[in-house]
Amino acid sequence: MEPSIVDATLDEIRKALEANHIEDAIAALTDLHPVDRAEAFADLDDQDKAVILPQLDINDTADLLEELDDEEAADVAEMLSTPFLADILDAMEPDEAADVLGDLPPKLAADVLVEMEESEDVIPLLVFHDETAGGLMTTHLLTLMPDITAAEAIEYLRQTTHGSDTPYYLYVVDQTTRLIGVVGLRDLVIADPNRKISAIMDTDVTSVKTDLDQEDVARLMVRYDLAAMPVVDDDNRLRGVITYDDLMDVIEDEATEDIYRLANVPDHDLAFDSSVGLSIRRRLPWLYLSGITALFASWVISQFETIIAQVALLAAFQSVVAGLGGNTATQTLAIIVRAIALNEIEPRDAWRTLTKEAAVGLLQGLFVGAAAAIGVYLWTGNQFLGLVLGLALVGNMIVATVIGTLVPLILRRLGSDPALASTVLVTAVTDSVGFALFLGLASFFVKYMR
Amino acid sequence: MEPSIVDATLDEIRKALEANHIEDAIAALTDLHPVDRAEAFADLDDQDKAVILPQLDINDTADLLEELDDEEAADVAEMLSTPFLADILDAMEPDEAADVLGDLPPKLAADVLVEMEESEDVIPLLVFHDETAGGLMTTHLLTLMPDITAAEAIEYLRQTTHGSDTPYYLYVVDQTTRLIGVVGLRDLVIADPNRKISAIMDTDVTSVKTDLDQEDVARLMVRYDLAAMPVVDDDNRLRGVITYDDLMDVIEDEATEDIYRLANVPDHDLAFDSSVGLSIRRRLPWLYLSGITALFASWVISQFETIIAQVALLAAFQSVVAGLGGNTATQTLAIIVRAIALNEIEPRDAWRTLTKEAAVGLLQGLFVGAAAAIGVYLWTGNQFLGLVLGLALVGNMIVATVIGTLVPLILRRLGSDPALASTVLVTAVTDSVGFALFLGLASFFVKYMR
Repeated sequence: MEPSIVDATLDEIRKALEANHIEDAIAALTDLHPVDRAEAFADLDDQDKAVILPQLDINDTADLLEELDDEEAADVAEMLSTPFLADILDAMEPDEAADVLGDLPPKLAADVLVEMEESEDVIPLLVFHDETAGGLMTTHLLTLMPDITAAEAIEYLRQTTHGSDTPYYLYVVDQTTRLIGVVGLRDLVIADPNRKISAIMDTDVTSVKTDLDQEDVARLMVRYDLAAMPVVDDDNRLRGVITYDDLMDVIEDEATEDIYRLANVPDHDLAFDSSVGLSIRRRLPWLYLSGITALFASWVISQFETIIAQVALLAAFQSVVAGLGGNTATQTLAIIVRAIALNEIEPRDAWRTLTKEAAVGLLQGLFVGAAAAIGVYLWTGNQFLGLVLGLALVGNMIVATVIGTLVPLILRRLGSDPALASTVLVTAVTDSVGFALFLGLASFFVKYMR
Repeated sequence: MEPSIVDATLDEIRKALEANHIEDAIAALTDLHPVDRAEAFADLDDQDKAVILPQLDINDTADLLEELDDEEAADVAEMLSTPFLADILDAMEPDEAADVLGDLPPKLAADVLVEMEESEDVIPLLVFHDETAGGLMTTHLLTLMPDITAAEAIEYLRQTTHGSDTPYYLYVVDQTTRLIGVVGLRDLVIADPNRKISAIMDTDVTSVKTDLDQEDVARLMVRYDLAAMPVVDDDNRLRGVITYDDLMDVIEDEATEDIYRLANVPDHDLAFDSSVGLSIRRRLPWLYLSGITALFASWVISQFETIIAQVALLAAFQSVVAGLGGNTATQTLAIIVRAIALNEIEPRDAWRTLTKEAAVGLLQGLFVGAAAAIGVYLWTGNQFLGLVLGLALVGNMIVATVIGTLVPLILRRLGSDPALASTVLVTAVTDSVGFALFLGLASFFVKYMR
């Protein structure tokens, strides 16, 4: 629905620019929601961007920088003069301004910071790693002291013209800015105007430390349905707040990361429109790793060269065993990795899960093995070839479900990401075991198969 | 962090129950946050559940039903008397109550509805499909008329004791309940008390229809950073609202669905603790499908039986070509499927993406093919075997990236889910093409390899 608006507006802008009606192009662009506007702007070619950019006012440019991808935003920032860029960053949310600064060349970033008026809001954010609570939080938030009344708090809200990212929670801090409570806006509104904040606030307030990983922050907010999460330092002093909109981005990023890692794409910033060079640099190492494990599986097969020379048809079916083992393992892996990511599976569940998956592997092996055995017998007329294939499938599917359960659980225990490397490790096992089982059993029955 | 609390409390509860101190067990359980309480309760055995359940009051039982999985909640609901269950459902959020009712046996659900006092809030929700806007929304929301003043609206808030799921947005409707605007709670608080709501409200309010798919709702809310989304019928009458906490669950469910589908697990409700029977029923069909494509690849290999009998070592390396082609395709598939899910890739991007991925495939093929060719030459001393392997890898990797891009894009164009079946289709192609390329090239060079 939205992309069609973007496409239509892009047509309009390009036509206006061709006819040299720059003000019409600007009008069409600024009519869009800031999110759509950024998408449309990003799709213009560099020449059109250079024409439009100087015509946007400070707020529109700030919106644009907030909504563009980090990389695009840095490109745009570099096209602007340093004093103008400083004004724009002042107009942005501090966490977004910090992200833009973080992507600029260090020299330019330092120059801009010197020119900024509100650099003190942004500088603390620059020290936190992007993927921690400190990197996610905004410092734009409204705090209350416990000894003012509800009416005074409302008056304070009225006089504070600057926006806040958390319009529905107000955090209560003591003189040393230690977090001591939270007041919902609705509770504030319906309270007796003369009541003290300390009597209205909820003192049981969940908070996280600045260095907590964003994935853990997301888990807590989703688990407890929190729209905002205050961030404190080691002394419980309120440093910022993380809001649901940042959270939604984190949840999507973490899901992308898991999907990519299971597919051996180790960098979740890689996208369909990443450059060829970047794509290859990130994807190639994992293909080499897979290649090494594939060559190991080849070595397993090469041990059976004599038997294959005698019954060449074995070469046709060995891949069925390895492939279906790999498929079974991938199913188990997806379920276990997702359960770990969503914090559903506990160490105490490990043994029960392992025996259950082994049972699934055994039964799937019996069903698939029987079907494959019958199919191959009907095709080749050789009942021993069918028997060997069926037995190897049963064995490899049990191995597949067990290894598909164990590898991510062990990786988690070792403190590593359970999705990373799981697929390569698991496939290496199901390939090698699959070939060894099938060709080993075939060696045993070879006198009946010739 | 939370699971350790749950584990500790479980120990405490079990000890208290063994010593027959039921009230201590209840106290330990109800001390927990409702989310943790539900997790702990679900982990108790049936006998302990039956002891504890009758001791919980209406609100605690309602909390429990809201936080348990749908299936668990239905089990608990069936353990309660009909009048008590009706009281509990009255105390729950209407959307949660509707979910519980939807999982009960129809006869029991009907009996309970008759006994409920607030059934009129719940009945409309029962008609909507779970995975649509109507199925996600709650009907608990506060609406304002445009002609009252800010002070009157605040007074109304004060007098409305029932909770609302959207404490920070108030929706404005006309006499026929048509949605005409939205007022943020903060704007209401800081407005001149005598101003009319019609002068404060924002009339540019985004809404969705009841039958919109939850994935599309999530896309819109994430794109525009909305904490709540009003849901209207075809006449623009306000029917309910979807809040960020439901949204977060949707985002996670949709990510799980994509991860599972790429791994050939077609049912996103399948979990690590699903029964063996359910697991096999859902997973087996896809293994049969994979088995059929694997047998097709076997047929391709069987066409080269004579050459394999002559150079049995070919059997050792054919899987390297198919396997690395499959890996390359999976990388591309993950990136394209994720871009489609996040609505990042447009039809206009298709051609550019395809040529880029083909270039990635060519270059990865050259790098990996060269390494594999050299490796196999050093291992076997046969330069022609290395050459054939390298050439086949280049060819299959180009095929892999192209097919990995095309299959999900075509599935989307056909209105099907791009993740579903993509992996099976793509692997079928990379396997068959890989074997055919490698063994076909080998036939050509066979006189040099013997």
